[in-house]
Amino acid sequence: MKTRNPTRIEADPDLPVIRIIREFDAPRERVFRAWTDPELFVRWIGPRSIDTTVDVWDARTGGEWRYTARDGSGSFEMGFWGSFHEVRAPERLVQTFSFEGAPDGVSLEAMAFEALDDDRCRIVATSVVESIELRDQIVASGMDVGVVEGYEKLDALLESEA
Amino acid sequence: MKTRNPTRIEADPDLPVIRIIREFDAPRERVFRAWTDPELFVRWIGPRSIDTTVDVWDARTGGEWRYTARDGSGSFEMGFWGSFHEVRAPERLVQTFSFEGAPDGVSLEAMAFEALDDDRCRIVATSVVESIELRDQIVASGMDVGVVEGYEKLDALLESEA
Repeated sequence: MKTRNPTRIEADPDLPVIRIIREFDAPRERVFRAWTDPELFVRWIGPRSIDTTVDVWDARTGGEWRYTARDGSGSFEMGFWGSFHEVRAPERLVQTFSFEGAPDGVSLEAMAFEALDDDRCRIVATSVVESIELRDQIVASGMDVGVVEGYEKLDALLESEA
Repeated sequence: MKTRNPTRIEADPDLPVIRIIREFDAPRERVFRAWTDPELFVRWIGPRSIDTTVDVWDARTGGEWRYTARDGSGSFEMGFWGSFHEVRAPERLVQTFSFEGAPDGVSLEAMAFEALDDDRCRIVATSVVESIELRDQIVASGMDVGVVEGYEKLDALLESEA
């Protein structure tokens, strides 16, 4: 069994920014597709306890997206939505991001997909919001669980399809 | 002749943020419409030396926009594009913004349209980018001329339609 790829989640000390850095054992083309193909996306996004269904998905520059996350018991349901500012396969994806829990909060997320040797890749995701307070609320919301578990599901999806 | 409404353009000392604050002598419903109706928008956006044509315009939550600015001599032409993250008439408009001069730079702009007495309104536009360096480049680009002259054109448009 391989060593797991660690997920770095960093709150910038000076800027209202969160950076997430993660390597994957697959070429960036496949990882980019897992981010933009809705059938693949719902198989890995979010924490293990949650099922995701896509409501709207138009993964092109100027397109939009919306999905709903639910837990198995039906006691939790949350909508997420935003726009695709830029879809530049396989290297760059820029999106906005909001969720029903804080509908006036909005993040701008720019993701770089970097090719590495041995058919591997690294993603660097930079999310910015308009205040340090909002950034700290997002960090404190438990988003890290969803990010780490989601990327582990993505590892498994990439391995199963290899 | 009325005293002109001043335009405040502020670079936040600590955050990669630009704030623009401006009052208008018209209700926020009309000012919001001047921002979202493409036929009105092209009549006031940008500096006096520039003509603007809309290429794509879908002013709804999840929609997109694109316009081209040209000077009269044909020596200058620049494309601008982005998405409408949220269109919540008449109070809130959230957009992304890029232009061909720096296509990897992207701003997230949230605008509040506040009702004032006497059928007036105030807009507060907060633009955030991912670094102080990019913010300072935008401030140094001469964007203030386009903002100030554009809002003066919008004053005249609102008065002519009153």
